[in-house]
Amino acid sequence: MLSPVCDTPIRQGFPAKKIRPTMLTVHHLNNSRSQRVLWMLEEIGVEYELKHYQRDPRTMFAPPELRTIHPLGKAPVVTDGELTLAESGAIIEYLADRYGEGRFLPPPGASPERVRYNYWMHYAEGSAMPPLLLKLVARRLESAKMPFFAKPIAQTMQSSFIDPQLRLHFGYIEAELAKSPWFAGDAFSAADVQMSFPLETGGQRAGAKNLPHIRAFLERIHAKPAYQRALARGGRYDYAS
Amino acid sequence: MLSPVCDTPIRQGFPAKKIRPTMLTVHHLNNSRSQRVLWMLEEIGVEYELKHYQRDPRTMFAPPELRTIHPLGKAPVVTDGELTLAESGAIIEYLADRYGEGRFLPPPGASPERVRYNYWMHYAEGSAMPPLLLKLVARRLESAKMPFFAKPIAQTMQSSFIDPQLRLHFGYIEAELAKSPWFAGDAFSAADVQMSFPLETGGQRAGAKNLPHIRAFLERIHAKPAYQRALARGGRYDYAS
Repeated sequence: MLSPVCDTPIRQGFPAKKIRPTMLTVHHLNNSRSQRVLWMLEEIGVEYELKHYQRDPRTMFAPPELRTIHPLGKAPVVTDGELTLAESGAIIEYLADRYGEGRFLPPPGASPERVRYNYWMHYAEGSAMPPLLLKLVARRLESAKMPFFAKPIAQTMQSSFIDPQLRLHFGYIEAELAKSPWFAGDAFSAADVQMSFPLETGGQRAGAKNLPHIRAFLERIHAKPAYQRALARGGRYDYAS
Repeated sequence: MLSPVCDTPIRQGFPAKKIRPTMLTVHHLNNSRSQRVLWMLEEIGVEYELKHYQRDPRTMFAPPELRTIHPLGKAPVVTDGELTLAESGAIIEYLADRYGEGRFLPPPGASPERVRYNYWMHYAEGSAMPPLLLKLVARRLESAKMPFFAKPIAQTMQSSFIDPQLRLHFGYIEAELAKSPWFAGDAFSAADVQMSFPLETGGQRAGAKNLPHIRAFLERIHAKPAYQRALARGGRYDYAS
């Protein structure tokens, strides 16, 4: 018997919740993209071990210990048996494919739902996050710790380029969420997990929460029991309100 | 009969080259990520119409006409019958799934090859491009057109954060390409098409061409007939040498 995700046989004989793999470990950085990996795991109902890493409170960079797990020293990283996997989009899809029994993504192929799903999986980091990264950099340049002459440059960068880009992107996302409650269509999918981070950081850095469909989406995901369990396990995460 | 990409029946009765869809159109911006979409199409051997758009020579932004094709006004965008699709990773996977007959990506599921393939599909824009974007921004701040006090800020951003990040990423990619000739393993895949842009722009912005495995990869892709056909059709592209 094949699950809707082909080449991934349905795991029989396990209860629907708490499939136990050869201990999956999430290397989790507080207040980061890795929160959504915990959420994905809680949605699937798979057991996992959590290793916590804390950002340097001054630089906000990930701590050097993460380099012993993955050469890029970033989080999230998951280890699952022989596999060490970074990159949150790839991790979320791996978990959905390997343990999700077809519940979190449309079947493979070029169906409209799958194409739409895949679009948002890529859009989250490929298009939505870059202007949010620039916003973060510009805000740091503006801060009191920088020489005074950094401020006008940071302000010009924001007003001439970054803020219009953010308005464009969040206006576009708002219009898309007016069409369907979830990114891939009528059903919740891994693309909603992937898109949560740009929407949550965009809520904080770009006023995206003032847009009604984005606000409703965020309220909907934050009310999910799996989201709340992930939040309780993950520790400090500034974007969930 | 099902192709290795399930739910995508093999298109029978077409010659291996030049499958003709309901006219696929690529909205192509010169000197941009959309060059790799042309390359993917030439590898597959699918016919397509090309609409050229030119960057504003002063700002380097895409022209406003692109907004009539897609609300974000970016390229690449492809239209294929009812479908209008942006985001190069999603486009490349759509083309490979819809027309590639399983030749350009490992079968779906959680096999090591597919996980590796998917990792690089996400890594290209999710991790490799952000420091390259910051490098571009910092270089513009450094340029003669900006007020003189922008220069030391741009230099500090580069030396303290951006350049170390670029060294880390390209050192990592170099080590990965030492293990296998193509990103997903022994076989060429759509992930190589997706990764071409960070490597090509990294060659220009971050000296990545000085690393022997990256240089060999670039030489290998630039020698491919499909790459060269795409280059001839796409017009100006500064990164292919």
